[in-house]
Amino acid sequence: MGVEDVKAAFEGLSIPWECVEHNPIEKVEEGLELDSIKSLGCSFAKNLFIKDKKAGFFLLVVTADRKLDMKKLPGLLGKGTKEFRFADEAALKEKLGCGKGAASPLGVMTDAAGEVTVVLDEELMGAAKIGCHPCQNDHTLALTPDQLKAFLAKYSHEPMLKAPAKIEEEAKVVGKKEGADSKGLEYTKAGNFPNWYQQVIHKSEMIEFYDISGCYILRPWSFSLWEAITEFFDGRIKKMGVKNCYFPMFVSEAKLNAEKDHVEGFAPEVAWVTRSGDGELEQPIAIRPTSETIMYPAYACWIRSHRDLPLLLNQWCSVVRWEFKHPTPFLRTREFLWQEGHTAHGSYEEADKMVMDILGHYKAIYEELLAVPVIKGYKTEKEKFAGGFRTTTVEAYVPATGRAIQGATSHNLGKNFGKMFKIEYEDKQGQKQIPWQTSWGFTTRSIGVMVMVHSDDTGLVLPPRVAPIQVVIVPIVMSGMNLDTLSGAASDLASQLRASGVRVELDDRDNYNPGWKYNYWELKGVPLRLELGPKDLEKRQVRVVRRDTNAKLDVPWSVLPQQIALLLVQMQHEMLERATALRDAALKTVVEWKDFVPTLQLGHMALTPFCNDEEATHFEELVKEKSKAEALAASGAEAEDARTSTSVAAKTLCIPFEQPPLPEGTKCFISGKLATCWVLWGRSY
Amino acid sequence: MGVEDVKAAFEGLSIPWECVEHNPIEKVEEGLELDSIKSLGCSFAKNLFIKDKKAGFFLLVVTADRKLDMKKLPGLLGKGTKEFRFADEAALKEKLGCGKGAASPLGVMTDAAGEVTVVLDEELMGAAKIGCHPCQNDHTLALTPDQLKAFLAKYSHEPMLKAPAKIEEEAKVVGKKEGADSKGLEYTKAGNFPNWYQQVIHKSEMIEFYDISGCYILRPWSFSLWEAITEFFDGRIKKMGVKNCYFPMFVSEAKLNAEKDHVEGFAPEVAWVTRSGDGELEQPIAIRPTSETIMYPAYACWIRSHRDLPLLLNQWCSVVRWEFKHPTPFLRTREFLWQEGHTAHGSYEEADKMVMDILGHYKAIYEELLAVPVIKGYKTEKEKFAGGFRTTTVEAYVPATGRAIQGATSHNLGKNFGKMFKIEYEDKQGQKQIPWQTSWGFTTRSIGVMVMVHSDDTGLVLPPRVAPIQVVIVPIVMSGMNLDTLSGAASDLASQLRASGVRVELDDRDNYNPGWKYNYWELKGVPLRLELGPKDLEKRQVRVVRRDTNAKLDVPWSVLPQQIALLLVQMQHEMLERATALRDAALKTVVEWKDFVPTLQLGHMALTPFCNDEEATHFEELVKEKSKAEALAASGAEAEDARTSTSVAAKTLCIPFEQPPLPEGTKCFISGKLATCWVLWGRSY
Repeated sequence: MGVEDVKAAFEGLSIPWECVEHNPIEKVEEGLELDSIKSLGCSFAKNLFIKDKKAGFFLLVVTADRKLDMKKLPGLLGKGTKEFRFADEAALKEKLGCGKGAASPLGVMTDAAGEVTVVLDEELMGAAKIGCHPCQNDHTLALTPDQLKAFLAKYSHEPMLKAPAKIEEEAKVVGKKEGADSKGLEYTKAGNFPNWYQQVIHKSEMIEFYDISGCYILRPWSFSLWEAITEFFDGRIKKMGVKNCYFPMFVSEAKLNAEKDHVEGFAPEVAWVTRSGDGELEQPIAIRPTSETIMYPAYACWIRSHRDLPLLLNQWCSVVRWEFKHPTPFLRTREFLWQEGHTAHGSYEEADKMVMDILGHYKAIYEELLAVPVIKGYKTEKEKFAGGFRTTTVEAYVPATGRAIQGATSHNLGKNFGKMFKIEYEDKQGQKQIPWQTSWGFTTRSIGVMVMVHSDDTGLVLPPRVAPIQVVIVPIVMSGMNLDTLSGAASDLASQLRASGVRVELDDRDNYNPGWKYNYWELKGVPLRLELGPKDLEKRQVRVVRRDTNAKLDVPWSVLPQQIALLLVQMQHEMLERATALRDAALKTVVEWKDFVPTLQLGHMALTPFCNDEEATHFEELVKEKSKAEALAASGAEAEDARTSTSVAAKTLCIPFEQPPLPEGTKCFISGKLATCWVLWGRSY
Repeated sequence: MGVEDVKAAFEGLSIPWECVEHNPIEKVEEGLELDSIKSLGCSFAKNLFIKDKKAGFFLLVVTADRKLDMKKLPGLLGKGTKEFRFADEAALKEKLGCGKGAASPLGVMTDAAGEVTVVLDEELMGAAKIGCHPCQNDHTLALTPDQLKAFLAKYSHEPMLKAPAKIEEEAKVVGKKEGADSKGLEYTKAGNFPNWYQQVIHKSEMIEFYDISGCYILRPWSFSLWEAITEFFDGRIKKMGVKNCYFPMFVSEAKLNAEKDHVEGFAPEVAWVTRSGDGELEQPIAIRPTSETIMYPAYACWIRSHRDLPLLLNQWCSVVRWEFKHPTPFLRTREFLWQEGHTAHGSYEEADKMVMDILGHYKAIYEELLAVPVIKGYKTEKEKFAGGFRTTTVEAYVPATGRAIQGATSHNLGKNFGKMFKIEYEDKQGQKQIPWQTSWGFTTRSIGVMVMVHSDDTGLVLPPRVAPIQVVIVPIVMSGMNLDTLSGAASDLASQLRASGVRVELDDRDNYNPGWKYNYWELKGVPLRLELGPKDLEKRQVRVVRRDTNAKLDVPWSVLPQQIALLLVQMQHEMLERATALRDAALKTVVEWKDFVPTLQLGHMALTPFCNDEEATHFEELVKEKSKAEALAASGAEAEDARTSTSVAAKTLCIPFEQPPLPEGTKCFISGKLATCWVLWGRSY
């Protein structure tokens, strides 16, 4: 039995076919992590194929999070069952026609003899759709409870339905938090960071999963943050004279290959279009991973005289890098949104000022909008942009994982691309010159960094300046009270705040109680909650609750707009302060190798003296290898976290602009040669 | 000899290889039209291989626009030459190793005997790069004049250089306008519309050509128009509660195929990604031609209760439709920018209100921003959106070509996609329902329509409301005058205007004279030019010149901001009025078939009584065929204009919302059945 048989059966029953393909999975937990399965939007079933000494075979089809005690099953399944154990693979094959890990109620196609009793969890049968394997664990399909019942009926199996309460009572469900609301987070930031992150961004409605790996849907709740960033940065660069434009997303192979170092940096990740409609293209065409090779041939046409300089262009678009590491929403995605600026100048100084000004704006986005502190610096030769002359960067830090992360970079490209693309102009003296160029990009990754830095076990925490909703008003309705008075006052307050420029939402939905609403808005990270109950009405005040600290404050209506404005500014400021304090506490100076890996093991970054000479790349490689080996030896950790693709190896983050004094004679911590600067290292995303 | 031989020779000489491939071209004029050749950014050479009775073979390599009188050539080439004629193909093959249409100075590789004298036009040798065929007319390469000389030297040919003045004097150049500035337009709108259009958008710096067919670079001068449209429309839809988001550009084959009619509408134009890096993808992945099939599976997850409705989302992005018709910048491109809105509603009425409101905004963009009048109406069944229930449209008209063009459409999708993607919710009564959906899109095509409607033989004419620069100030410097006074006054005026909200540019470049600047800004379509000379300074006034009418007006400085504000509003208004008058004059009522094709032949649209019943599609097809046949018979015209892919066949534009009275008993003009409505027909882009 396999996917084709199930498909044929579905066709016979007119059940629509909604199926995704994926790598074979063995455990239900793996399935829960797969974007393709998530995209089905179904409750993924856990299937236990068991047998007892007397009654024979049972297939338990339950919600994925149930953990059952085998010993208690007779109490649940009754009818003289006893001593349950898992049926072996041979039995699975024989009775349900499935291989290991692929048990599913659809296997009843094989069980013409009716030897297997199917037991269905009523909670699962209340789901909109149920996900299960079509007798192969490399496919998952979705069907409604009614369709499943129809399928079972067709193959003459009447399922046994079990209520969740009954299952809990009889079979001792473990592992589910008491009273946990399935809408809230099920993981803690400290306990399981990757799962916590996935849940925060999904349950807060920032992200929806998609059936193509590495692609995600940016829902309005996250896209509005991108709009805030766009507006801020676009305004700043326009003041500098940068103009927006749009270049094609496609690039020919010849142009992509024009700059050797550059193409080497990007080639493995390039997506190629080779077909249109039913026909093959004459030449494969690449989708831009970045636009240097798309833009600069045009620059060669436009730049002829010194009067054509500076040329300052920017575009907002998406780019595609077909990465094979484990994708992470916002941080590592196959398509992402960004701006890319590309400028050409008549002098090195002007180009350098451009990359520094832009880096300043990038820092401002992180610190002033997202409340995430960053460190400015130069990238080393090894880490700089492929094909460029020098890369400047802002580096952020995620305290919860002890990982650094590149925030954004600006590149002084030198004259290298100009040479390759024959960009030449006549200077004032009539001499042929190649311009100095820069490029710089800021991506949606920044949103992920913000989530990782600020959010907590309750959900998102949004910095007020970028929060789509800054204040939510929740009226607290008590039985027997005059509804009109309360809602009238609530909407008056909302109007006042709106008039003073605050983004405010009045949550007057009548189908949810205040507690539910608190949870909902906390999960979504709204900075301030205003509670308005009968007592508040009497005292003409509201209770204000801060999302980040949970601090509560009663504020008279008469001063509400002023107080709210103040609180929003305060919260914004304190979020940055707290994150800065945590980041600073993780910044350690290390002067000897022996202290290096232990520092990293504590989740810290290390600032070391370094010989930044022509052998620097070699020593960076050495640090990478040695740090990895020592870390593995010390902790028995795995070399790579498969879920985030972060390695235990250290790499350079930057050569910080702000250099501490370097006493004469200080040695490089790895080469032993004379150090020339301080370099910042860390484990990194 | 062929491209590989030339390539090898270039390698030997270390000349960089910059070559594009294209369909074989026979005439130099064809080459000038090719985007791939344009993208080389070079002067395309015209090569004439001639021989005379005595002196033997000459290869004349001249600028593409030169037309030479064969009889005068002896005067130019001297040395006893006489009676020149074109050498035949056999000689071309023998002496230069090239086939017909592929003559090129690179052919000297073959001419080891040195029998061919190469004559170079000095104007061409002053170009940054020269384009010529590598002995094959399906390739064009670019090289610098110095590289060409090095190549000729390598094969022992010393070229004869001829000054343009000498060529003109001796060889009677024809066809070039007296004193025509090469920066200006060389074609008239009435004389050669396609070439005029290409030049207007290229020379005004709206568009740069690109080496992938159907893809164009939107330079800041056109992109800023798109930004103005974006800002206007985005503000309006946000007020309606629509939120922005971003869905992936990729879609799996299964999802794309989910809705049968829909996929049939788009499949032939879909671009497929099949490779990443060096590896084949397991499944080919499509690039969105539109996002219904990308978004609606997510809608099925999000819409569960009537409380989740309405769902109002929009995204700004690019989409890809790999068309095979002749591409036209803005109008028909393989990648284009648009917004696509996708909404779901609890009732037909709400969905209908949504598509009508959006259509109102689309009309406002055309009429209020772009000053292009449009007609609102319903699309017929034949012309509606694939898979949808009913399409509403705004239709524009280009007087210069007598062609109609679809401006933008909004679709009431009905419940069709909801059924296919299983979007279901529980209504207030607890019943399962499928929501009503809408989708609607507005694209960069609108910019092309605006150019076609308003621009003239001098260049662009931009409606003031969207012009990136509304006013340009040109100081008129006379010899011996005080420069500081003039420039001081000019920048004072600029500041005053800027302060009053006018987008103003002071053109104080000292390397161009006022006449050159007038031409430059007229070509770019800036609405108002302010001339400030010594006399104006004395009288404390400026001369204001309107771009659209060339009307001149002296305005005292004291009232300048008020007058400019008024003039901008007036010009915007009058541009729409003029375009509306032209459009209205082209709107003809036709009640009998015999008048139909003659009306279209005059470049008019025809409003006809029509039997809009279940046979309507059949009769639309019939009109298409008959109108084409009659038009061809009447005029001997070609069925299709290859350069714009517009057919002489008529199609329905819309069923206008504003219906004239339909007298009882009126017959359909094509079927003879009773008419049920008036339908608008035209030849269309």
